[in-house]
Amino acid sequence: MSTKIAWPVPAPGLPENVHPALAAMARAASAAYGDARRRHTRAELAEKVADGADGTPTMRVDEIVEAAIAEEADRHRVNLLSEEVGFVDNGSAVTLVVDPVDGSNNAANGVPLSCFGGTVAVDGQATEALTVWLDTGRAWHARAGEPVPFRTTGRTALTGATVNLLRPHKRNAEAWMRVADKAQRVRILSTTVLECALVAEGSVDAFCDPGSDTHRLVDLATAMVTVPAAGGAVIDVRGRPLEIDPDLTRRWSGIAAASRALADDLAAIVLG
Amino acid sequence: MSTKIAWPVPAPGLPENVHPALAAMARAASAAYGDARRRHTRAELAEKVADGADGTPTMRVDEIVEAAIAEEADRHRVNLLSEEVGFVDNGSAVTLVVDPVDGSNNAANGVPLSCFGGTVAVDGQATEALTVWLDTGRAWHARAGEPVPFRTTGRTALTGATVNLLRPHKRNAEAWMRVADKAQRVRILSTTVLECALVAEGSVDAFCDPGSDTHRLVDLATAMVTVPAAGGAVIDVRGRPLEIDPDLTRRWSGIAAASRALADDLAAIVLG
Repeated sequence: MSTKIAWPVPAPGLPENVHPALAAMARAASAAYGDARRRHTRAELAEKVADGADGTPTMRVDEIVEAAIAEEADRHRVNLLSEEVGFVDNGSAVTLVVDPVDGSNNAANGVPLSCFGGTVAVDGQATEALTVWLDTGRAWHARAGEPVPFRTTGRTALTGATVNLLRPHKRNAEAWMRVADKAQRVRILSTTVLECALVAEGSVDAFCDPGSDTHRLVDLATAMVTVPAAGGAVIDVRGRPLEIDPDLTRRWSGIAAASRALADDLAAIVLG
Repeated sequence: MSTKIAWPVPAPGLPENVHPALAAMARAASAAYGDARRRHTRAELAEKVADGADGTPTMRVDEIVEAAIAEEADRHRVNLLSEEVGFVDNGSAVTLVVDPVDGSNNAANGVPLSCFGGTVAVDGQATEALTVWLDTGRAWHARAGEPVPFRTTGRTALTGATVNLLRPHKRNAEAWMRVADKAQRVRILSTTVLECALVAEGSVDAFCDPGSDTHRLVDLATAMVTVPAAGGAVIDVRGRPLEIDPDLTRRWSGIAAASRALADDLAAIVLG
């Protein structure tokens, strides 16, 4: 029996000075997701309605929220690079790289761990990022090179660390268990963007895809600004450069960690 | 660097007709946890300050919240069975079985997934339960034998199911991976009481300790009322009876599932 999700979605608590298009998109995402939860059951939110530009299926919840975001891109005359629609060229030097609903499966089923992730890129350089935990309205905002009001734990080694992981797949089950064995504690929240915000604020030491190459740019773009601003590091397990690229078929195994040393330690354990 | 947790703890949104002692304890737990977050850094909240009645170390956050709950037990003249202090006999036929802070590690470090879990037992029978997600104030209330405003998914088989798991340990890593392989998706939120509430409301199909025998009565008591009231089942992987017992050294491997059939399917996969 599929029911509606009983809880409301609050408006995001945004700090001042967020890029107007980015703020508008975050507000639109929250409003659209809240409306979708009122109108649709869990099964309806999870229904596959298309194939996305990133090569993965699009759920109805993704489609609804992305449509609201695309409207804001048009209104603010910025380009949009987003999970389902791909690259929308509105003739601007500014591109917003957006994951409309990170943790789509959580969002569709009512696990209260999903978020909006948006990054401003100017001429291919990420300058600003905003993460909004949709279920609570909590927001993390960062600008490249400017101080932020949160800080990673600073931990430098995997032994004793708490690590959030993508769930294991057959192709990387051994690497997954190596990390789990060595870490003090592991979690799987199924929402990369939110989990990277928890690294940035010092609630967990690291987040890692242990080599499954699941991450797309939209999953990692907010972390690429937010985590370094808080004293941490974001790398790919296999050393591939993380770069703003409209080709959403590219994949990475991202690590966001409290320090570069911890990121490197994690990568070494994953690679065996 | 250990920082304070930046976010406030809202008062719980309690339904009417909650047992007065239970409601008072939930409010006291929220207030005490919120106050502890304002006063202490993450490292201070996580500091081991004693050994609990259940045989596991007591963190400062556990101690602070349990003290506030024990005060309410005295005030309301009910007995208390709680994680750290054990059984407190206030000469009543009513015992409140309480996990003051389920997900202590989350609570101490700022991962926003921790909750109060309280169960009313009259002459050894669980009659009523309340779960409050401390970070948001969301509450789930159930009375044995009465309808509740939420419902499990009703799913009956592990194939295709979403399952939350306790994190793996060396002693049960193989069983853990068998469940992960067969399930559609697994998560580890590190908060049994809250994860069982998500089963009750139909956001995940099941929660399971895959055989590590980590669960104590205080971890499972709320689920024993809440999940059956919503159409699901709570069992032990090895078939041991789940019963209200003041001996907190007893351990189980709990399964809370959308249906009895799914619970049995999970137990069979765990046992191999």
